[in-house]
Amino acid sequence: MSGRQLLIFALGGCNEIGKNMYVLQYGDDIIIIDAGGKFPDETLMGIDLIIPDITYLEENADKVKALLVTHGHEDHIGGVPYLLKRLNVPVYATNFTLGLIELKLEEHKLRRETTLIPIDSRSSMDFGEIRTSFFRVSHSIPDCLGIVFETPEGTVVHTGDFKFDLTPLNNQKADIHRMAEIGKKGVLALLSESTNAERTGLSPSEQIVSSHMDEAFMKADGKIFVSTFASNVNRVQQVVHAAMKTNRKLALLGRSMINVVGVALERGYLSVPEGMIIDHRDIDTFQSEKVAILCTGSQGEQMAALGRLSSGQFRDVTIDPGDTVILAASPIPGNEKDVSRIIDNLFTIGAHVIYGTGSSTGMHVSGHGYQEDLKLMLTLMNPKYFIPIHGETRMLHHHRMLAESVGVEPGNTFIIKNGDVVDIEHGEALQTRSIPAGDTYVDGISVGDVGNVVLRDRRLLSEDGILVIVLTLSKHDQRLLSGPDTITRGFVYVKDSEGLINKINNIVRDALDELPPGQLQWKVIKQSIMKSVGQYLFKQTKRKPMIIPIIIEV
Amino acid sequence: MSGRQLLIFALGGCNEIGKNMYVLQYGDDIIIIDAGGKFPDETLMGIDLIIPDITYLEENADKVKALLVTHGHEDHIGGVPYLLKRLNVPVYATNFTLGLIELKLEEHKLRRETTLIPIDSRSSMDFGEIRTSFFRVSHSIPDCLGIVFETPEGTVVHTGDFKFDLTPLNNQKADIHRMAEIGKKGVLALLSESTNAERTGLSPSEQIVSSHMDEAFMKADGKIFVSTFASNVNRVQQVVHAAMKTNRKLALLGRSMINVVGVALERGYLSVPEGMIIDHRDIDTFQSEKVAILCTGSQGEQMAALGRLSSGQFRDVTIDPGDTVILAASPIPGNEKDVSRIIDNLFTIGAHVIYGTGSSTGMHVSGHGYQEDLKLMLTLMNPKYFIPIHGETRMLHHHRMLAESVGVEPGNTFIIKNGDVVDIEHGEALQTRSIPAGDTYVDGISVGDVGNVVLRDRRLLSEDGILVIVLTLSKHDQRLLSGPDTITRGFVYVKDSEGLINKINNIVRDALDELPPGQLQWKVIKQSIMKSVGQYLFKQTKRKPMIIPIIIEV
Repeated sequence: MSGRQLLIFALGGCNEIGKNMYVLQYGDDIIIIDAGGKFPDETLMGIDLIIPDITYLEENADKVKALLVTHGHEDHIGGVPYLLKRLNVPVYATNFTLGLIELKLEEHKLRRETTLIPIDSRSSMDFGEIRTSFFRVSHSIPDCLGIVFETPEGTVVHTGDFKFDLTPLNNQKADIHRMAEIGKKGVLALLSESTNAERTGLSPSEQIVSSHMDEAFMKADGKIFVSTFASNVNRVQQVVHAAMKTNRKLALLGRSMINVVGVALERGYLSVPEGMIIDHRDIDTFQSEKVAILCTGSQGEQMAALGRLSSGQFRDVTIDPGDTVILAASPIPGNEKDVSRIIDNLFTIGAHVIYGTGSSTGMHVSGHGYQEDLKLMLTLMNPKYFIPIHGETRMLHHHRMLAESVGVEPGNTFIIKNGDVVDIEHGEALQTRSIPAGDTYVDGISVGDVGNVVLRDRRLLSEDGILVIVLTLSKHDQRLLSGPDTITRGFVYVKDSEGLINKINNIVRDALDELPPGQLQWKVIKQSIMKSVGQYLFKQTKRKPMIIPIIIEV
Repeated sequence: MSGRQLLIFALGGCNEIGKNMYVLQYGDDIIIIDAGGKFPDETLMGIDLIIPDITYLEENADKVKALLVTHGHEDHIGGVPYLLKRLNVPVYATNFTLGLIELKLEEHKLRRETTLIPIDSRSSMDFGEIRTSFFRVSHSIPDCLGIVFETPEGTVVHTGDFKFDLTPLNNQKADIHRMAEIGKKGVLALLSESTNAERTGLSPSEQIVSSHMDEAFMKADGKIFVSTFASNVNRVQQVVHAAMKTNRKLALLGRSMINVVGVALERGYLSVPEGMIIDHRDIDTFQSEKVAILCTGSQGEQMAALGRLSSGQFRDVTIDPGDTVILAASPIPGNEKDVSRIIDNLFTIGAHVIYGTGSSTGMHVSGHGYQEDLKLMLTLMNPKYFIPIHGETRMLHHHRMLAESVGVEPGNTFIIKNGDVVDIEHGEALQTRSIPAGDTYVDGISVGDVGNVVLRDRRLLSEDGILVIVLTLSKHDQRLLSGPDTITRGFVYVKDSEGLINKINNIVRDALDELPPGQLQWKVIKQSIMKSVGQYLFKQTKRKPMIIPIIIEV
C-alpha cells in the first residue's frame, strides 16, 4: 500500500443496489465518495439498515482526507452518520445535499462536531496530489454532481447518478460541454452508474410527467392525493404547479415530506405561493375539489402516510370515494407487493387510482439513464479503463457490453466486487487483490452486533418455531425429579395440540431411560433429547422446530 | 339456501392470484370449478401451501356433484388432493389436465379411490338441472376449457384462463365461433379472468417466441440451457424444434420437467424425434454445441435445476463460460429477486444470458389476455351480469371498467370477495350475504393446524429472537436457589454479549428482590421478570425479543 500508486475500490454499491461507497487513494491520501445505506430484504430478519464495512478506512484513518457526497439519496447518504461516528472526516457536498445530511446529523446528535463544506459544480480543491473538481449531472433530486480526480497517474471520473435530460424542469442543466472537455483531455478510468443498464433506448424527460399531472388535476373532482419521494423536488414542484392551475391548496403529510420540503423551501429549490400550504387538520374546512395532498408512502410502507390513509388510519384525513390518488413514483424492486396492496385498498375505498409508468398517463420517469444515456456518457468520457458501479451483477455486465459497443477495449472493463482493488501504476490497471468489505447490519441502535449466527437462528425460528423442554434431575443419580415440561412458540398452537405435547414429554422420558447408567455429561443428555424429539416431530409433522433442552440439577 | 335459486361464489381466486375455486349451485346441486393452491408470501413464515377453506362444501357434501377442472396449472389443481381427502367427488377434466392431476394423486396415494372422468370441448352433461358444456380457449398449457352452465335462471359462463392467440402453435384453436354462439343465445352472468386487466393492448402470439428461440439457437456456440415451466408444452415444443434445426440432443433436468414432459409425450401433446432425448449424465459425451438442456427453475427456486446449476451444485452437469442460458418464462410477482439472483450468478460464471420480454429477443409471452382480449371476450359473451375473477383487487376493478366500456351496465358488475355470494332469482342478481371462506395453511404434512397465533409468534421470533430465563426457587419460601440462567437464540450472539447476559441476570435478581414477600403466583413473578428485562433491553438495543421466564420450584 506504500509508494505512489493509484487505488480504486468500492466498499459498497458493486453487485448490489444500495450502500454506495467508493474510495480513491493516491499514496497517503484517501478520498471517500458517498456513504450510503441499504434496506434489508426479507431474509435479513429484524435488520433495520445495512451500511458498508469500513474496516479499511478505520485502519487508515490518518490518510482519509474527505467524504465527497454526489447527491442526497438514501443510498448515498444513509450511512453518513455511522461513518462519522467512527471517522471524523470533513464532508463536502452541495447546498441541497448538505441540507438532507444535516437532518440526519441532527437526528444522530452529530451536527456540532461535524465539518460540513458546501461545494458546487465550479468548486475545486486538492487532496495531496489529487486535484478534485466537479460537473453537474441530471438526476431525480436537485444539485447532483459527478467528480473528476486528476492524479499523477491520470484522470479518474465518477459520474454519480445521472441521466441525460435535455429538457429538465429546473435550470440545473447537465454540464455536457464540461464532460466533453474532460473526455477530450483524456480519461484514464471511468466509474459510471449502471442502474438502468438493462433498459434499451434513452430515458424519457421529466417533462412528460408535467402534462400528465396537469391533466389528472384538471379531470379530478374530489380531493387529490399525490405520493412521491419528498426528495424529488422537481416532481413536488410539478404538483405545486398543477395545484396552482386548478386553484387547490396543498397539504403535506408524512415526516420526511414535511422535513425535505422544508429544506427545499429554505434553500430555494422549491417555489410555492404564499398561503398555498395549509395544515392537514384544516383540509376539511375547504371544498374537496380545492385541496391537494402531497404524501409519503410511495413505496408501500404501511406506516407511512399513504399506507395509513389507505387503511383509514390517518388521523384527521380520509380518502373518500371519488377522490383521486396518484402514485408518482415507481416501486423499487422488492417493494412491488407492498405497493400493490395499497393500490388494492384504494380501489376498495372507491378512489380513482393513477399508477404505473404507462406512456399515456404515467406519473413517473426514472432518474437513471438507460442504455443510450450510458453510451453517451461513455462516448463523452472515452475512458481507457472502465469500472461499472452502482448496480447488481447483471447490470454491471450489461454496462460492460455497452462500453465495448462504443469502443472500450475488451479486457479493459473491471467488474469488481466490493473490496476488490483496481491498482493503477504507470498508467496500467490491474485487479488482483482485495481489502475487507461487506455488510454491517444496524439493528435497533446497535451496529454490527447481529451476525450470521443470529440471522440463521432468526430464520430457523421463523420457519418452524421453537420447543423448550425443561427437566429437573437429581444431582445425586440424575433421576428425573420433575418435568419434562414443554413450552413452544411458533410451532403449533398449544391448546389444539395437547396430545402432541404429551407425546413429546413421553419421548423425552424414554430417551432418558435409554441412556447408559451413571453420571452423564449434560451435553450427552441434551443431544439424546434433541435427536429423539427432532426425529419424532419431523416424522409426524415434516417440520423441524428448534429444540432447546434445559436441565436443572438439584 | 333452499328452493330454486342460483348461487355463484368464489372460495378462492378473488382479490388474489392463486388458489382458484369457484362454485355454482342451483337448488340441491353444487358444482366446483377448479381447486387451486397458492404459494405463501414471506409473511406466512414456514407455510408451504395455501388452499381454500372448504367448510361450506363439507357442510353440503351431499349436494356436491362434481369438480370441473379448467386446466392443469398449479393455481387450478394444486388443491385437488386436499379437496379429495375431505370430499369424495368425481373429477372432470381434459386428457392433459388429468395427466397432471394423476401425478398429484399418486404422490398423495389417492389415485385408486378417485373417479376421474375425461372430457373435451365437445362433452356435455347434466348435474340436476344444470346443463354443462365446454368451449376451448387458448392459454399457456394444452387442453384448456371454458365452461357453460345452462340453468333455469339463465346461462352462466366461466372463461377459465385465456388469451386470444389467432396463430397458436398447436392445432388447439380457441372456439371463437362457439363463443359467439353462446353470447348470441344470451348470457346471464359471465365470470372472466382478470390477470392482465392492467395491461393495455392485445396479448402477443406465442409465435414470436419461436423465431427468437431459433435465432438464439443459431447464434449459440456452447451448450444451451432453457428454463421454462414444464407445463408450457408449446414452449417445450419450440425448444425441441430449435434443437432439431441445429442438430442438438436434448437433456431434461428437474423432477417436474421429467414428469410433465413424460405426461405430454405419453398423451400425444409433444412430438420429439426418436433418440433425441439423452440422459443428463451423458451430456459430456457430446460436443457442447451439440447439446441443449431443458430445465426447471425459471422462478428462481434455489433448489430447482437452474438454481443448482447457477451455483455449481448440480451433479454431473455444469454451466461453463460461453454457454447460453435462456429464461423462457417471466418471474411471477414476488419471485423477481430470486430470479435476478440466478441471472447474476449466470453472468458471473461467464454465461451468455437471455432473459426478459424485450420485443427483439424476448423468450416469453403471457398466457393471459390483455385488455383488448378481455374486451373481446366480454363483447362475444355480452353478459347481463359480470363477475371479474382470478385477480387481485385492482385487476378486478380494471376489468370492471373494461366491461363498462363495452356495454355492461354500471352496477351490474359484482366485485366479490371470496365467500361473497351472488344470488340470482327471477333473472335478478343480488350480492348481500357471504359464506365462510379463507386461507387454509398447509405446513409440512398437516393441514390447517397453523393459525394466526403460531404465525404471529414466528414473526416475532424472526424479528428479534427469543430469551429463555430459567430460575429455580425454593418451594418453601420462593428463595432463589439457582439461576437465573439466560439462553438466547436470534437475539444477540452470546459469545460477544456476556456483559449483556450478566446484566439481564442481575435485572432478574433485582426484580425478584422487589417483589412483595410471601408466596406469589408464578404468573406474578413471570410478569415482573418480563417487564423489567423487556424495558431494559428495549432501552439498550431498541429490540423486543420474546421473553420466556421458566420457574422451577424444588
